[in-house]
Amino acid sequence: MRTSVYMEELDAFTYRERISQDNAVVLIPVGSIEQHGPHMPLNVDVLLSKALAGATAEAIDGVVAAPVVYGYKSQQRSGGGNHLPGTTSLDASTMIAIAKTLTLEFARHGARNIAFINGHFENYQFLYEGVDLALRELHQSGIDDAKVVLLSYWDFVDDATIAELYPNGFTGWDLEHGGVLEASLMLHLHPERVRMDKVVDAPPAVLPNYDVLPVRPELTPASGCLSSAAEATAAKGIILLERASAGMAAALTLEFPGAAPQPAAQTEPESVGVL
Amino acid sequence: MRTSVYMEELDAFTYRERISQDNAVVLIPVGSIEQHGPHMPLNVDVLLSKALAGATAEAIDGVVAAPVVYGYKSQQRSGGGNHLPGTTSLDASTMIAIAKTLTLEFARHGARNIAFINGHFENYQFLYEGVDLALRELHQSGIDDAKVVLLSYWDFVDDATIAELYPNGFTGWDLEHGGVLEASLMLHLHPERVRMDKVVDAPPAVLPNYDVLPVRPELTPASGCLSSAAEATAAKGIILLERASAGMAAALTLEFPGAAPQPAAQTEPESVGVL
Amino acid sequence: MRTSVYMEELDAFTYRERISQDNAVVLIPVGSIEQHGPHMPLNVDVLLSKALAGATAEAIDGVVAAPVVYGYKSQQRSGGGNHLPGTTSLDASTMIAIAKTLTLEFARHGARNIAFINGHFENYQFLYEGVDLALRELHQSGIDDAKVVLLSYWDFVDDATIAELYPNGFTGWDLEHGGVLEASLMLHLHPERVRMDKVVDAPPAVLPNYDVLPVRPELTPASGCLSSAAEATAAKGIILLERASAGMAAALTLEFPGAAPQPAAQTEPESVGVL
Amino acid sequence: MRTSVYMEELDAFTYRERISQDNAVVLIPVGSIEQHGPHMPLNVDVLLSKALAGATAEAIDGVVAAPVVYGYKSQQRSGGGNHLPGTTSLDASTMIAIAKTLTLEFARHGARNIAFINGHFENYQFLYEGVDLALRELHQSGIDDAKVVLLSYWDFVDDATIAELYPNGFTGWDLEHGGVLEASLMLHLHPERVRMDKVVDAPPAVLPNYDVLPVRPELTPASGCLSSAAEATAAKGIILLERASAGMAAALTLEFPGAAPQPAAQTEPESVGVL
Amino acid sequence: MRTSVYMEELDAFTYRERISQDNAVVLIPVGSIEQHGPHMPLNVDVLLSKALAGATAEAIDGVVAAPVVYGYKSQQRSGGGNHLPGTTSLDASTMIAIAKTLTLEFARHGARNIAFINGHFENYQFLYEGVDLALRELHQSGIDDAKVVLLSYWDFVDDATIAELYPNGFTGWDLEHGGVLEASLMLHLHPERVRMDKVVDAPPAVLPNYDVLPVRPELTPASGCLSSAAEATAAKGIILLERASAGMAAALTLEFPGAAPQPAAQTEPESVGVL
Amino acid sequence: MRTSVYMEELDAFTYRERISQDNAVVLIPVGSIEQHGPHMPLNVDVLLSKALAGATAEAIDGVVAAPVVYGYKSQQRSGGGNHLPGTTSLDASTMIAIAKTLTLEFARHGARNIAFINGHFENYQFLYEGVDLALRELHQSGIDDAKVVLLSYWDFVDDATIAELYPNGFTGWDLEHGGVLEASLMLHLHPERVRMDKVVDAPPAVLPNYDVLPVRPELTPASGCLSSAAEATAAKGIILLERASAGMAAALTLEFPGAAPQPAAQTEPESVGVL
Repeated sequence: MRTSVYMEELDAFTYRERISQDNAVVLIPVGSIEQHGPHMPLNVDVLLSKALAGATAEAIDGVVAAPVVYGYKSQQRSGGGNHLPGTTSLDASTMIAIAKTLTLEFARHGARNIAFINGHFENYQFLYEGVDLALRELHQSGIDDAKVVLLSYWDFVDDATIAELYPNGFTGWDLEHGGVLEASLMLHLHPERVRMDKVVDAPPAVLPNYDVLPVRPELTPASGCLSSAAEATAAKGIILLERASAGMAAALTLEFPGAAPQPAAQTEPESVGVL
Repeated sequence: MRTSVYMEELDAFTYRERISQDNAVVLIPVGSIEQHGPHMPLNVDVLLSKALAGATAEAIDGVVAAPVVYGYKSQQRSGGGNHLPGTTSLDASTMIAIAKTLTLEFARHGARNIAFINGHFENYQFLYEGVDLALRELHQSGIDDAKVVLLSYWDFVDDATIAELYPNGFTGWDLEHGGVLEASLMLHLHPERVRMDKVVDAPPAVLPNYDVLPVRPELTPASGCLSSAAEATAAKGIILLERASAGMAAALTLEFPGAAPQPAAQTEPESVGVL
Repeated sequence: MRTSVYMEELDAFTYRERISQDNAVVLIPVGSIEQHGPHMPLNVDVLLSKALAGATAEAIDGVVAAPVVYGYKSQQRSGGGNHLPGTTSLDASTMIAIAKTLTLEFARHGARNIAFINGHFENYQFLYEGVDLALRELHQSGIDDAKVVLLSYWDFVDDATIAELYPNGFTGWDLEHGGVLEASLMLHLHPERVRMDKVVDAPPAVLPNYDVLPVRPELTPASGCLSSAAEATAAKGIILLERASAGMAAALTLEFPGAAPQPAAQTEPESVGVL
Repeated sequence: MRTSVYMEELDAFTYRERISQDNAVVLIPVGSIEQHGPHMPLNVDVLLSKALAGATAEAIDGVVAAPVVYGYKSQQRSGGGNHLPGTTSLDASTMIAIAKTLTLEFARHGARNIAFINGHFENYQFLYEGVDLALRELHQSGIDDAKVVLLSYWDFVDDATIAELYPNGFTGWDLEHGGVLEASLMLHLHPERVRMDKVVDAPPAVLPNYDVLPVRPELTPASGCLSSAAEATAAKGIILLERASAGMAAALTLEFPGAAPQPAAQTEPESVGVL
Repeated sequence: MRTSVYMEELDAFTYRERISQDNAVVLIPVGSIEQHGPHMPLNVDVLLSKALAGATAEAIDGVVAAPVVYGYKSQQRSGGGNHLPGTTSLDASTMIAIAKTLTLEFARHGARNIAFINGHFENYQFLYEGVDLALRELHQSGIDDAKVVLLSYWDFVDDATIAELYPNGFTGWDLEHGGVLEASLMLHLHPERVRMDKVVDAPPAVLPNYDVLPVRPELTPASGCLSSAAEATAAKGIILLERASAGMAAALTLEFPGAAPQPAAQTEPESVGVL
Repeated sequence: MRTSVYMEELDAFTYRERISQDNAVVLIPVGSIEQHGPHMPLNVDVLLSKALAGATAEAIDGVVAAPVVYGYKSQQRSGGGNHLPGTTSLDASTMIAIAKTLTLEFARHGARNIAFINGHFENYQFLYEGVDLALRELHQSGIDDAKVVLLSYWDFVDDATIAELYPNGFTGWDLEHGGVLEASLMLHLHPERVRMDKVVDAPPAVLPNYDVLPVRPELTPASGCLSSAAEATAAKGIILLERASAGMAAALTLEFPGAAPQPAAQTEPESVGVL
């Protein structure tokens, strides 16, 4: 029987066995604490990055690190803005430090294949910088064989799936904040945390092609969501989870050749973990 | 019916209602990802700080923030040392930044009563600095009515309880790493994560009264634990949870006078939360 | 006769007069030193952000700050990668500090309307953070009426213009590195710096939907360009400059209401400035 | 025909060829945006450090990096003070980071001979620190053959030239802010940017032998200049450019032995560059 | 005749001779400027850490570095709190930087055996972090044989001595601020700086088992001391100095095997040094 | 009887009385641990900045803060270079932080008149930055009446004194490292620390008008001194101490008008202090 893919559920001895396998892959979920409308909890990005990382890890026999819970500031054009209470965010320098340190720590454990599974749009560039700084420092320590992949899970939902799930047109991942993608995944993975009766079914937010600071609050819909989750279903969540995690598994298999896909890889995690 | 005390289980609108109550108290659990022997998972400090914060929040109608998952480096005299794989730690500057920013963020949400519930010995001084810097910055923004309590939950296990639960003598909180305190609480709160059959029943570690770096690995017992968990029981866990959370609730009620204790306060959380 | 819009061409006394006008707008061009193929110089992003800011400033009577010359690291999916000699980049923390400090400095001069005119894709999030930190600090100094717009100039090339200028299809701004957009603008503004005979007419680069570090150099075309500039013309450059600067002028007029558009606004700067 | 010495005017492929020559020297001009009286523009220090670097590079076949445009805060005893609008300055930590990173970046390109050509008095110590930190980091990466020269161009105007150009006595480089040195060089290099009719012909400023903060504004002459530029001429500018660049070329040739002086070295750059 | 153990009293040539001996040990005293009641001066922690380091250095032929004079913020539970004028403290980041840099600097001098002799409770964790960062950086420079001991001198007062010197019971090192330990050592070492007639003979302070910020000033006794120094005597000071320095010498001899104890080791320094 | 001017010799209550006087002036000595040849100890700059501050404080009834012991890196052109063992230096960021924090701390104590008395050439610009940052932060806290003077004590040795004491010509303060100025002051203040028999009587060092890093060690004389101390005498030391402290007292009286000079001001401190 295979043990959990979640590092948090492993004792240190089991973890060490896993991490010391040839070509072990560590997947680090990165979320945020951010308002996601009246129908979903504040930690959607943590739950989903963790679940997507888990499903991917199942497929490639990877280990999912404990999640990065707090993320970078919500920006109005992708998350409604950081001015809204509940949204609780870190500065760029802290996000960079976290990404850098986690890369260094897992490398210290022996991992040479590391992937950040981002679940919050705004985190991306700061994770990138953290990884870059870590690799520079590893090089100074004489370690040149570490490789890091950085991805956002929704980028692995392919065009065919988008066409299938958004028959009335797709407005872009930016505006998916609190919308069909996240709500469908939540309905599948954590249905008890979703209140579809509270979904505000409004047209997509209209936001300028630039940022203005301080934020003009009136540009964010009252719900805090940038598009409607009314069309979300658990069935769509299953499809999204399968397609995205399969895509990520394929990418990681390509980048980390030794991390062979599992014969009967499950695309859904055994458990979504208890923090 | 009362909603969850865990911020992560609340939607933003419910959270805002909670946080905008007079004298709302936010409790921030701070853990670590650290080896805890062969019998417990790597996230014991996260689980326990979260549960202790939850029980305390139940008693005073507080809100438990999403946990700080990664903590400061494990030190040999209190956690076995940071050299052990699995232990995954942040630098001091990052811990300070996290504590500072969370204080500022919850103050931005309107909270003026904030408590850090520490579950990892080594975090303490860095949380202290973060809070101090945040209050300095709040002062510059004209906010002088914020108050922050910083505590480690085991400091609220009183001498009588220690005498009761450690009939054969108590070796100090430092050496409790992976021992009776943590294992008992885990047996009560997350029994499925504890493997009592794997407990290494060895005498307490003997460590010098100073630190030496790089760590001398031979000073840490092979189990990674500084004392034995063999005497741990779920019954002791219940007592520890009740006493510590009652003590914390009393302290917070004293410091945050408006945060009246709940009539029929539960000393155990409704749920321990899904991250 | 109006004086130059370029701060660098003004003496301090003339500058003070300009900046002390009601609703003066300062536009800060942000470029990079980055390889742009064999047909264009390393400072394309500086030249273009400066020219676009100049044309916009002409339209709204703004002042163009001295440019930020060095930018954030080139990323493979938008600039070919930072591993290529010639590309000379700053860390995130430095970019953030520059954006923060310039915001504070122009606010100290009296400006309350500030716009960053970005000409290098990778800079964006770091400029955002710098602006956010500056506004936080201004708030602490009791200044709450400063407003900052952050934009990338190509986001103001509208869909109709794209359809007109890319009749064979548009592959996205990411892949425009060294391609038709930049080469056309350069042919119009600095024709002596463009060697169309050296353009490598290859199909657009095919890059994964994630980042991998260290960069896999073989993914970047040998030219360093992500799409071909073969179809670039000065005539297209005129159109791009006019449309983008008009769009930016409209946006800034909207955000900074006091900054009325000039009656006979020129869409082309009087001069592109000598550093 | 030789290509430009200015990196900004080179495409990446030409630059790589230049930088990969044995003993290639990179000269990095460092300026400031600082008031220079009513007769000169705000970017005098950028223009002059760039021109002096260019003339020196011509003599030793070096490459001039894109300039550092913004500099450290103007101090009252050498630049009139940072309180004056127009003067736009970076903090020490940012200047240090820029100097450090540029050293590292040009070393990454392959350069082992790097010179900072300072054109703003106040920058010096911060550039020094940045270089020192960069060399420490290069050492950690196993690179021990990089060598960096740090100079201010006016230190290469020798006593004989001073006696010749300042027949009525020389008050020291500190007080030369906006005076004969800078104005003469500008009259030679960028005459269209100088308004000699606006020169305020006042005696040298009298400033204490210490600093006081906040600045006492009344100590700075109303013109912002610390000495008079009335005696400035283009002819003096030619002499200053020739002598200083010849002195710098000699110093760099001494320090970077492989960088042989050019047979018919021009002491004046082919072009002063377009940013 | 042996030269002084105090680096500050040595010229550079003598110092170099000492430091270049096999297994030379450098002891770095770390103090604070902190109120110590009406009977002792503000620099008690500097004087005592320096004297204890001196006595230890005599025993093992070590060299005492110049002291770190300013320390981390006084905390209410161990020093009365940082709100009291006279107490003059550095932020955590500065303390960390000092500890890191001094470790690196003495390693650069050739020392491989370094000990921090802490004299101010609150410094400890920040010194730890500084040492950890320094060792990481030394590793990157290829230096892996440096070893650092970190200790607080009072931890070497053994239980027997405590029983002997505190016949009426010992309230813990935390509350010893301004009490018998420090006053006795001062009476022995610097009697002219102690005013026993000003000692406030009050019962030990009662402080909570947590921190609250901002500090509640009323919790600190008016004297600023957490326990009474009334029982302090120079005789106790002699005992404390001998026992603690002997303990430290033994520990350092154990950790730095080459640093053989001196045949006729003096347990008291020849001089306590003039800064 | 007046109490000591040295904060370190005062208890907190006496200090508070002194600091709370109208127009109290705090003088902060800043030194370094730096080789000063074979004839003087490593802490010359600490001893002298402290003594000069003391003499000045006597004249204006000021308080001398505990000294900053470690300083910025020794540079070859003013201190022989930081490569020499014994010289033990901090990075710029640490020096800046120390100067910033001390300014803030003494302002918190109530002081509004603060002076840094620099005794190590290389510190100056970093102290300046620290003061500037502190004043910015004080402004954010609503404190705008703090004033800080920054000086180096040798700048108060006037030309007449130079002519008197250096009859054979003066080579500039830069080259005074280890020379007549410092040795004379030491002979007067700490004769037991000077070994005139070890003075190396060599001509002044010849150093280039630029810096080169890594340092070329052969440029520093073997003694580490940049000029000869052979002509140093205690009598000269008395003159230097009197003139410089009188000049500093005059300057501080001018800048801090309320700090009236003492009727019978002593120009020599009562004691030079025991750290």
